[in-house]
Amino acid sequence: MEIYEIIGLIAGICTTFAFVPQILKSWKTKSTRDLSWEWLFLLILGAMLWFIYGVMISSLPVILANLVMLGFVITLIYVKHRYG
Amino acid sequence: MEIYEIIGLIAGICTTFAFVPQILKSWKTKSTRDLSWEWLFLLILGAMLWFIYGVMISSLPVILANLVMLGFVITLIYVKHRYG
Repeated sequence: MEIYEIIGLIAGICTTFAFVPQILKSWKTKSTRDLSWEWLFLLILGAMLWFIYGVMISSLPVILANLVMLGFVITLIYVKHRYG
Repeated sequence: MEIYEIIGLIAGICTTFAFVPQILKSWKTKSTRDLSWEWLFLLILGAMLWFIYGVMISSLPVILANLVMLGFVITLIYVKHRYG
């Protein structure tokens, strides 16, 4: 594995982990009133496009980070849809 | 400009804009008590590493998105340091 891939993967771990507290909080409290649909829509669109971009430039860190991100955002959308 | 670059740039615009409401809220209310130092540290480290990664793989979307992100996080750190 090249050095730039390791840097990219650590970058992905940092920005992905930064998102974990929000997921845990929403999951535990089942409350997502503070999260707007516009925000979730921007995030899921962004993560999907980053994922496609990552595939097109063959960037493992961009692909992995945004797959996890997509999982997170889908979880938030599920909680918001289910519990409001 | 190649199609993958356009996709990457739109991806960057989406995930960057998703961050704007937080910045505006913190800037207006001068209150960042809900933002932990650990979270800000993860974000600034992540954005710096993504930026370095973007330079190493010559990815304009990754470079631009994380430059803007760095500006956002530095703004949040300034507000938190100044107003707590």
